[in-house]
Amino acid sequence: MKLLKVDTIVEVQEKLDLYFRDLVKEEERISLRDANGRYLAEDVNADLNLPAFRRSVVDGYAVRGADTFGVSDSAPVFLDVKGSVDMGVTTELIIGPGETAYVPTGGMIPEGADSMVMIEHVDHLGDTVIGVNRPTAPNADLMNIGDDLKAGQRYFQKGHRIETKDIGLLAACGKEKVSVYRKPTMTILSTGDELVAPSQTPGPGQIRDINAYAIAAFAESAGAQVLSVSILRDQWGPLREAILQALPESDLVILSGGSSAGAKDMTAQVIDSLGKPGVITHGLAIKPGKPTIIGILSGEKGNKAIIGLPGHPLSSIIVYDVVVNGFLKKYYLGNEETTKTISAMMAENVHAGEGRETYQLVTLLPIDKPGADCRAIWRAEPIRAKSGSILQLAAADGYVVIPAGAEGVYEDQVVQVIPLVAR
Amino acid sequence: MKLLKVDTIVEVQEKLDLYFRDLVKEEERISLRDANGRYLAEDVNADLNLPAFRRSVVDGYAVRGADTFGVSDSAPVFLDVKGSVDMGVTTELIIGPGETAYVPTGGMIPEGADSMVMIEHVDHLGDTVIGVNRPTAPNADLMNIGDDLKAGQRYFQKGHRIETKDIGLLAACGKEKVSVYRKPTMTILSTGDELVAPSQTPGPGQIRDINAYAIAAFAESAGAQVLSVSILRDQWGPLREAILQALPESDLVILSGGSSAGAKDMTAQVIDSLGKPGVITHGLAIKPGKPTIIGILSGEKGNKAIIGLPGHPLSSIIVYDVVVNGFLKKYYLGNEETTKTISAMMAENVHAGEGRETYQLVTLLPIDKPGADCRAIWRAEPIRAKSGSILQLAAADGYVVIPAGAEGVYEDQVVQVIPLVAR
Repeated sequence: MKLLKVDTIVEVQEKLDLYFRDLVKEEERISLRDANGRYLAEDVNADLNLPAFRRSVVDGYAVRGADTFGVSDSAPVFLDVKGSVDMGVTTELIIGPGETAYVPTGGMIPEGADSMVMIEHVDHLGDTVIGVNRPTAPNADLMNIGDDLKAGQRYFQKGHRIETKDIGLLAACGKEKVSVYRKPTMTILSTGDELVAPSQTPGPGQIRDINAYAIAAFAESAGAQVLSVSILRDQWGPLREAILQALPESDLVILSGGSSAGAKDMTAQVIDSLGKPGVITHGLAIKPGKPTIIGILSGEKGNKAIIGLPGHPLSSIIVYDVVVNGFLKKYYLGNEETTKTISAMMAENVHAGEGRETYQLVTLLPIDKPGADCRAIWRAEPIRAKSGSILQLAAADGYVVIPAGAEGVYEDQVVQVIPLVAR
Repeated sequence: MKLLKVDTIVEVQEKLDLYFRDLVKEEERISLRDANGRYLAEDVNADLNLPAFRRSVVDGYAVRGADTFGVSDSAPVFLDVKGSVDMGVTTELIIGPGETAYVPTGGMIPEGADSMVMIEHVDHLGDTVIGVNRPTAPNADLMNIGDDLKAGQRYFQKGHRIETKDIGLLAACGKEKVSVYRKPTMTILSTGDELVAPSQTPGPGQIRDINAYAIAAFAESAGAQVLSVSILRDQWGPLREAILQALPESDLVILSGGSSAGAKDMTAQVIDSLGKPGVITHGLAIKPGKPTIIGILSGEKGNKAIIGLPGHPLSSIIVYDVVVNGFLKKYYLGNEETTKTISAMMAENVHAGEGRETYQLVTLLPIDKPGADCRAIWRAEPIRAKSGSILQLAAADGYVVIPAGAEGVYEDQVVQVIPLVAR
């Protein structure tokens, strides 16, 4: 392999920015029922106050609170029942001093009334008179106009990833249809003479293709659309043909596998043979993740990225998360929300890679150590795997980034863990 | 409303168990590519060792470690290169003392060799001789048979919910197709004369239907299939007709809305009119969530549950999470995994409901209090919302359960928060 300069993550981001910063994100309008996990392409304001009218939150009687001041079991107040409020319509009733009206839960509070008395606290004294024997304060058991949502107020920003618990609030804002960014499309090509599909029993020297399936799952969880996953021999012709076929429909082509020097060289040459500018990054200054190739092909449909991930499963997922996920969110999904990190105390020393940023996968376990640092309740156990290991990925809760200049992180040091989950 | 006994959560679970404990869960075989978020209907063991052969994790030379003991820059060892190993096939090479062979990353280690020397640490001295100038330990830079997965070992239990990070491990176990439980099907009927669809501008006294959309999102995140969401007037005929139409295709019918006494009474009567045993629970001894109705209808297709949730958005989601989610997981998805709770310190006192279990929604914020209890890094802020509030749901991270007998939870008390997320 040619000895080429490796790029830091910041350098990679700067290079990608040259080609993608002017990309116009495509939007689509979809039903709120399909919007969970999608990224908003519009700011969302409440179009109306919620509630838009004063609304009872109990079954009971609308009263003027002043009428009930000082009442008790021995000295109740008697109120004239002027009528009852129907659900879903306006009411013309007006409550004067000494008057009341029945309002079911969710019904409109008539003009003049300022509070509700629950039906359980009322004595019915004939058809048109009730007795109230406990005082009620103004605004009791009702919602005023705009108590929940204020008309015109912004509740969601463009680029926000819609979560399960956001759906109700979007419905309240009137968003039965919502504008979201089109899912970026991805084709995953696994390359390697040793690879067989997971359904097959590997022969001598062969191994099942694991990475492509893992990457597809992460990509889909993060909001991409994976068009296909397929296995190719490590040969110039089939690889070049497969990329050419994938490019028109794919925003991004992921090449998975082939960490050997020969495989990486050929991949780079194939990308360069397909157009300009070709390979822009020949390796990353991170550990693990060095054997990563990034190419750009400019064509009629704009710039397309081709990213060759390392062959080792854990390296592959780390590079996916650090490079690809961030790229998709920034240029295709408009998402600038920062990842919430988890504070944890390192369970062991971890040495940094010489001169390279180190990404250390960790498992989080509850702290059971007396006198532990109060900034953390998790113990971050570094996952010390030979880099071919897939079992450890299922055990990984996230990773810790050790800067290039640092010696490492130390036992009991409080660190920030970036969670390795759909986000 | 008739004064009927309310049930505790445990009583509800016992009643449901009578009707559903003999339910035979239906399974389906799907592609691993579609399995994220589904529930395993089979235990998954590794069918083979991974790797199934000794495999190099670097580009380099397979050697007998003993040949390199004591070597240095000034006293290298010279080894005869017997050949090179191809990817994806077995190798017939045998490495004797003083011999070596080239092995690319992922290639098979030839018999006789016990470690790898990275190509960077080798001097090429002609076509068939290399010099090695640093010692290598047995097993260096290779994976032994079964280092990652052991044939026959169980890696997943039946009923496990498949997460993103599990997909790679399932592929490694050969599960390109996987048996999962069929998604339970749900029809959601929103009832209320005041309800309009989110797309509509509510008229006087009207309000948008929020709950049905929120519940559908939670149900789908948790692995159910929501067949439809629709709004009905609060009338006997349409409600009865809609339930009858939904029953054949739905495992569960959710009735959302209508917290007024009249609406709840009618709902109960409609359920009772449709068959036996009819309504089995007329209310829950929890706060919030009391106005919950549970009915069972036994028919040709077995027992179907009809659950009427409270009309208030937050109560509705709590009852969904506490009752419905648990019901679906237990009887349709075979999932017995316990929810991971989050330790947090209460930010304020919260009083319990008199004689009822209290479910208090909370927002989690980082603790910034000196001398805080070391068992928690989160401060749980109780959400004090009038119960019609939807805005608070988007702010809720989870809830705290206060037992029926307790007075409440206190400021600075460490509590366990049940996360309100897809799970």
